[in-house]
Amino acid sequence: MKYYGALEAGGTKMVLAIMDENGKILQKSTIPTKAPDETMPEMLAFFSARPISALGIGGFGPLNLDQGSADYGCIMETPKLPWRHYPLLPVFREKLGVPVGLDTDVNAAALAEARLGAAKGKESCLYVTVGTGIGGGVIIHGKPVHGLMHPEIGHISVSPAPDDPMPRGVCPYHPHCLEGLASGPSIEKRWGVSARELPEHHPAWEIESAYLAQLCAGAMLTFSPEMIILGGGVMQRKFLLPMIRQKTVSLLNGYIAHPAVDDGLNHYIVAPGLDTQSGITGAYLLAREAEQRGGNRRG
Amino acid sequence: MKYYGALEAGGTKMVLAIMDENGKILQKSTIPTKAPDETMPEMLAFFSARPISALGIGGFGPLNLDQGSADYGCIMETPKLPWRHYPLLPVFREKLGVPVGLDTDVNAAALAEARLGAAKGKESCLYVTVGTGIGGGVIIHGKPVHGLMHPEIGHISVSPAPDDPMPRGVCPYHPHCLEGLASGPSIEKRWGVSARELPEHHPAWEIESAYLAQLCAGAMLTFSPEMIILGGGVMQRKFLLPMIRQKTVSLLNGYIAHPAVDDGLNHYIVAPGLDTQSGITGAYLLAREAEQRGGNRRG
Repeated sequence: MKYYGALEAGGTKMVLAIMDENGKILQKSTIPTKAPDETMPEMLAFFSARPISALGIGGFGPLNLDQGSADYGCIMETPKLPWRHYPLLPVFREKLGVPVGLDTDVNAAALAEARLGAAKGKESCLYVTVGTGIGGGVIIHGKPVHGLMHPEIGHISVSPAPDDPMPRGVCPYHPHCLEGLASGPSIEKRWGVSARELPEHHPAWEIESAYLAQLCAGAMLTFSPEMIILGGGVMQRKFLLPMIRQKTVSLLNGYIAHPAVDDGLNHYIVAPGLDTQSGITGAYLLAREAEQRGGNRRG
Repeated sequence: MKYYGALEAGGTKMVLAIMDENGKILQKSTIPTKAPDETMPEMLAFFSARPISALGIGGFGPLNLDQGSADYGCIMETPKLPWRHYPLLPVFREKLGVPVGLDTDVNAAALAEARLGAAKGKESCLYVTVGTGIGGGVIIHGKPVHGLMHPEIGHISVSPAPDDPMPRGVCPYHPHCLEGLASGPSIEKRWGVSARELPEHHPAWEIESAYLAQLCAGAMLTFSPEMIILGGGVMQRKFLLPMIRQKTVSLLNGYIAHPAVDDGLNHYIVAPGLDTQSGITGAYLLAREAEQRGGNRRG
């Protein structure tokens, strides 16, 4: 039996797992994300305890995913200062001596949803997590999209809702971006109550779903994914999904004539099929791919 | 020598060409787009005059591009009523008896730009035409994107510019979509003068470039193309491109740290490399691909 390491590297916590070749989780651990000099040794110890064949990482970004770049596998201009420019992939590759696959946490989750989850059998999907931040991953033609850098989603511009009491969001970069207006912290700042505690019939949810509908309609018109999967802490409020579907249909206003729209997007804008395991499962898939590519070592 | 038919099927005109196997145009004709019973016989006569090996069509949409659908190759809910539900690909395939490749006009143009034009050597690009309408095509992982339907781009929502004297656009579907606020007709309605005649230092261009910058920044954050190519009649006003670049950088506001942004997007948001030939060249490439797939006939 072969073993694989899977790491969901988040800005607040690291989820580490050892999986077997069937994708079964044999061991799992969650540790807080501190500075690299503290967190890296802990993670290396975890992954060194078994003879893994490869490691897959779904990491918080922005990441350098350009395999032709000297900085391939490094974290880029993150506000998490101790991790800025940290050579995440190179260090794991050198210390563990195994192939390492890397993508954004959300591209990893999107990959898992496309291969094994809600979008299984589809060639494309958009996966978005709505929580402390907002981020998205994109699969097209069966593979994660990188392009110039990688999909980001959180900082797309949205039009402030007319009845939003806080039309300038909490993002320090952009007055009207999705993360600034619809992330968990923006909800809490706007209403003084966390997304978890706000009652179902609070006006907060009309505004929240209006912003997320702008994302969905824009994605449908722009790159036309075969499915949109919304996960993350805020989406745990299950009544949100139907509100988002309805408002997306309204925004499209009949322009996209497709059975999925006639169906009210009930099978198009959906919850993750892998529940909260999309990210770690995606990291496992990245490990498998890194092993297949072989080595993945340079220099 | 083999011959290929290429058709750029637009809502106002049809551009027809016969090309040799090197992509050289041997014969070209432009006819107005009238109703199918008038225009189809003319086009069929043109393409029947030589023994073509395959036909490629870049067509106005929306198109059904789902090869598993019974309506594959048909035009969908277009406002051009005589063409609504017209079985464009099936009729050409039956009457000409050759393989027929079909994609949207803008996906065809994007494909040509990615293979032979400004984005040559890149795996992804966004091509947008800004003219009578606004539409966009997307190449990712080297291939045109379809997904649920196909990229559309024109009807994405934008935030009205604060100083726009006509903040409600001309689109009958959406009050604030890009096509409604930034297409040639919207410019003409807003200022009473056509985009071609408006002087360079008219405030119109500040507003126009602000809307197109919203498109560019949104695309960069959403699916991160390796290049954005802006063509079409309105983009013939060459001073627009630098204005769009500058405003896109402002909108990103430092969030995407990449050499292309540091460079002011001068080599990232660009004019078509194939000038006005992207569409017909893309149709030719679709013909070549249809021939390679072989037959492409069903039923």
